[in-house]
Amino acid sequence: MSATERVRAAYARLSEVDRPEVWITLRAEADLLAEAKEVDRRVEGGERLPLAGLLVAVKDNVDVAGLPTTAGCPSFAYRPERTAPAVARLVDAGALVLGKTNLDQFATGLVGTRSPYGAVRSALLPDRVSGGSSSGSAVAVALGVADIGVGTDTAGSGRVPAAFNGIVGIKPTLGLVPTTGVVPACRSYDAVTAFAATLDLAQRAIAVMTGPGDDPAAAPGPRRPPVRGRRPRGGRAGRGRARAAEPAARAAFAAAADRLGLPLREVDISPLLDAAALLYDGALVAERYQAVGEFIDGGAPDLDPSVRAIIGAARDLPAHALAADLARLDAVKAAGVLDGCDALLLPTAPEHPALAAVAADPIGVNRGLGTYTNFVNLLDLCAVAVPGGTADGGPFGVSVVARAFDDQVAIDVAARLTGEQAADPYPDTGTDLVVFGAHLRGQPLNHQLTAVGARFTGAVRTAPEYRMVLIPGPPAKPGVVHTGPVDGVALPGERWRLSPLPSARSSPHCPSR
Amino acid sequence: MSATERVRAAYARLSEVDRPEVWITLRAEADLLAEAKEVDRRVEGGERLPLAGLLVAVKDNVDVAGLPTTAGCPSFAYRPERTAPAVARLVDAGALVLGKTNLDQFATGLVGTRSPYGAVRSALLPDRVSGGSSSGSAVAVALGVADIGVGTDTAGSGRVPAAFNGIVGIKPTLGLVPTTGVVPACRSYDAVTAFAATLDLAQRAIAVMTGPGDDPAAAPGPRRPPVRGRRPRGGRAGRGRARAAEPAARAAFAAAADRLGLPLREVDISPLLDAAALLYDGALVAERYQAVGEFIDGGAPDLDPSVRAIIGAARDLPAHALAADLARLDAVKAAGVLDGCDALLLPTAPEHPALAAVAADPIGVNRGLGTYTNFVNLLDLCAVAVPGGTADGGPFGVSVVARAFDDQVAIDVAARLTGEQAADPYPDTGTDLVVFGAHLRGQPLNHQLTAVGARFTGAVRTAPEYRMVLIPGPPAKPGVVHTGPVDGVALPGERWRLSPLPSARSSPHCPSR
Repeated sequence: MSATERVRAAYARLSEVDRPEVWITLRAEADLLAEAKEVDRRVEGGERLPLAGLLVAVKDNVDVAGLPTTAGCPSFAYRPERTAPAVARLVDAGALVLGKTNLDQFATGLVGTRSPYGAVRSALLPDRVSGGSSSGSAVAVALGVADIGVGTDTAGSGRVPAAFNGIVGIKPTLGLVPTTGVVPACRSYDAVTAFAATLDLAQRAIAVMTGPGDDPAAAPGPRRPPVRGRRPRGGRAGRGRARAAEPAARAAFAAAADRLGLPLREVDISPLLDAAALLYDGALVAERYQAVGEFIDGGAPDLDPSVRAIIGAARDLPAHALAADLARLDAVKAAGVLDGCDALLLPTAPEHPALAAVAADPIGVNRGLGTYTNFVNLLDLCAVAVPGGTADGGPFGVSVVARAFDDQVAIDVAARLTGEQAADPYPDTGTDLVVFGAHLRGQPLNHQLTAVGARFTGAVRTAPEYRMVLIPGPPAKPGVVHTGPVDGVALPGERWRLSPLPSARSSPHCPSR
Repeated sequence: MSATERVRAAYARLSEVDRPEVWITLRAEADLLAEAKEVDRRVEGGERLPLAGLLVAVKDNVDVAGLPTTAGCPSFAYRPERTAPAVARLVDAGALVLGKTNLDQFATGLVGTRSPYGAVRSALLPDRVSGGSSSGSAVAVALGVADIGVGTDTAGSGRVPAAFNGIVGIKPTLGLVPTTGVVPACRSYDAVTAFAATLDLAQRAIAVMTGPGDDPAAAPGPRRPPVRGRRPRGGRAGRGRARAAEPAARAAFAAAADRLGLPLREVDISPLLDAAALLYDGALVAERYQAVGEFIDGGAPDLDPSVRAIIGAARDLPAHALAADLARLDAVKAAGVLDGCDALLLPTAPEHPALAAVAADPIGVNRGLGTYTNFVNLLDLCAVAVPGGTADGGPFGVSVVARAFDDQVAIDVAARLTGEQAADPYPDTGTDLVVFGAHLRGQPLNHQLTAVGARFTGAVRTAPEYRMVLIPGPPAKPGVVHTGPVDGVALPGERWRLSPLPSARSSPHCPSR
């Protein structure tokens, strides 16, 4: 399909679905057709545009130049001069921005109903909530209007809506995608996310958005220990006990875990759930007040009552309580959060509530929805939410959680559930490495590759100009030397792909980069 | 000198100097003689004890099993069961703990007078303050009673007393020395430090104390970017403008900068001074309240009035202000704090006040003393304070400040001022690397060694069993292969020493290590 055809199809679908609450700003079809024409021209000219003509729905707390950013609050709106780098990269890759989408106001909520632009309904079951806070972006994708939904995620906002709409949501490691041009929710824990109908497309979108921003303060510094400090991986995976979930969700989760086809050890997630409680019950919510508290205190008429109550209450939290909570989080992280596993399978949410249930208890229902997502960003983990069957007459979602920078591990595990062949999530930013001898699969140093999440991408053979030599030890090791065509042979090797290292990102220690 | 002779000399010196305010707990000579006898026995038995018989004065906010920890507040005292790992490592290396030393209460102060155990006087000018908060440890060393003083440093407490007593103080990168068993001042910014009469001994003490603790929550996680992300080093050094210093200190600083013998670029330190203001004027002091605020609020009769006022006032700081200050610090760090320099020379303190001046204005004078030290821990820098001549009839101190994990850079620069041959600061924890070809000095890849602060430690020559080969490119590179005695030659190489990498430390990402 050409970009022009895609745009026409998107607007046709838009008029079919009749979900006006999804959009805060929808761009004019004529404007998109003009952009599409230009994309088609470039593609015809031989340009490589990996996302050529794909339509993007952007959550309205992420800046797109020329369109207002409302963060779900009309009186807060401003008109940014610059598109957020994350979105600009999608556009540079050929994608077209369809518009800005509804959200729980100031990205504070997991329901999708906390917005003066209307409660967003689930794409599949209109009497249930869409999930939030990235409600509109998720539903736009699930309805087949947009190909890629850009969301944000602090407590689950990029995952819960994926679960409630039967699509994929990726919450990458903090700092991989720059948060420049995003209205902060909790600055230290905010991530830009991607929704798509398939894991493949979601990870391609994340790959395009990944890379250092030009505002180094907007991204956390590098936190990954050097390679030699990491534990070798044995492909260990765990599953959390879904005690907090509704019976239907528990059954669906058990079925999804069986389908995964990996031996799963049960992991005690109670330390994670305890840490999660800090997000709203503790003092970390002060970061939300820091971001928009002054505006909230101004008493604008279009504030959502729940959002105003949550953020407003953070004004009076004492700083020593925040210091104590940060110390607690550090202690949980230091104790090791995945119990020795490389990936942890969990329900994405414990239930899928009806709009009426949220309206009856807007704070209480919302809180429960974050059970399996709240702790992820706080503990510097990454997560991939994928469809995991059905429960209670609707879609059921599961999440794969992994350590910071192990995004590829989470994606690989999640791909077992979607049945997709997991593509390389970092086609442009990763590093190819060709290995011989002791680093081949089954050889004693292969763990040095798997320990950093590298993936085998194929066998190779050298030109017939090399020899293996024994480098004396102890321990003696094989080495490859170039001998030229007379003495040489074609050596068998393997190509492995490494995910981008944090050195490729902006770093407070490397001010010049 | 044997350990026994050292103990006898220390107690003889103790009785000469008549400075009872230095000590909170002084151990009995007989107990030390018994320990010294054991050390002498082990040394005679051939055991290698790098600090055999050296006497250590431990600041009384650091635990030593069997002795009370008072933190400068008798009613706060507890009797720890376990010696802090930092001190235990000194003892394991043959050092003997002479006793626990006076300090500004709860390590809150830079003067040395905020203690119910008495104001500590400068070792050389008894009408002036010792500096603090590690007052007693510094004076014990300066008086020649102890060889090593263990201090702590959050805002300059391990450096200002070095300056005021004419000795060396090293404040290592946060996390290198575990803070387990230390009464927190500001948990996120506390470091264990060492005083000694020479840079050589101070760095040996730091080297012995360096290494992961068994309480991973007590140390910050690894923050160093991988090698390839670092800027090559050209030996650039800068000097701050000592505008805030007294005229005598300014003149002494200029003379010390000349003596350094390095081309120094003037660096604008105003962003550093602005960041420093956050430490007491901002909300970061809430960490002090978190540590001991509840105790302070109890209204113990032996609280120092200044300390009570400072920490007590932190109770009412709002959490959103702390969130804002942490964001500001991140922005300053991200902007790059040393203006492209690898090391920055500064006065350690702007003046050396009399006891009477501090008594007349205990808060105001104290605040000025931290001008050149307060920002260091906040911005994740390391520093070495060394004697830098005289000013105003007393010792004048200068500090070399460098980036996190560049401790060796700071030590190397500081050694130019002390006239010492800088020893290897990491004899046990560093890594030796032997290089050939392109990594030799003067060759094109040598910068990869200097970029990580590696130091040339000597020329080497291989056994006559190696050959250099050309590894085809582009770019082609030399490589070394073992060919055996028939074809081989003795290749010339160089030995370089790398400082310990953070992977050698405890890491929240590596729970099992």
